[in-house]
Amino acid sequence: MAQFQAQVFVTLRPSVLDPAGVAVQAGIHHLGYTNVQSVRIGKLVELTLEAGDRATAEAQLGHIADQLLANPVIETFRIELQELATAAE
Amino acid sequence: MAQFQAQVFVTLRPSVLDPAGVAVQAGIHHLGYTNVQSVRIGKLVELTLEAGDRATAEAQLGHIADQLLANPVIETFRIELQELATAAE
Repeated sequence: MAQFQAQVFVTLRPSVLDPAGVAVQAGIHHLGYTNVQSVRIGKLVELTLEAGDRATAEAQLGHIADQLLANPVIETFRIELQELATAAE
Repeated sequence: MAQFQAQVFVTLRPSVLDPAGVAVQAGIHHLGYTNVQSVRIGKLVELTLEAGDRATAEAQLGHIADQLLANPVIETFRIELQELATAAE
C-alpha cells in the first residue's frame, strides 16, 4: 500500500454568482486595494489516504469529491495528488 | 501595469482541531473509504489584480491575506501568483 497526500480544490462554476467573494472584495477595497478586480471563494480539502496505487487513489478521490465535497450543479473540483511513502505491506 | 491571477490558500495551523474536517472524514468513511486517514478543510481565495510589478502584487496580497483572509492566530496562508498579461499603460 502507498501513502498519498491529496488536495481537492472546490470552486464555484464561473457562471455562478459568489456573494462571499463580493463581500471580501468590498473589504479588500476598504483596505485601499482597489486594484483587486475580482475575488472568488472556494474550498480546499486536504486528505491523507492509503491506496494500492495512484490510479486507485485518483479514482476514489474523484468519487469522494463528486459525492461529498462538491455540489456538481454549482461547483467544479480539481485534484492534486502526491505520493508520500510506501507503507510496509 | 501588469495583470495577475492569484490564489491564496488559507489552512488551519496543524495544532488546531478541525471539526469540519472530522465531520467530512466521517462522511467519507460512511461512503466506504475507510482508507482516508485525515481530512482538513481550508479556504481557497482566487483574486485578479493589477499591479506595477510582481513584488508589489506579492506584498499587497500578503497584507490582504494577513489583514482579511486569514486569522493569524489559528490559520496560515500560502500565495501562488501568475502574471496574466501586461495591460496597456
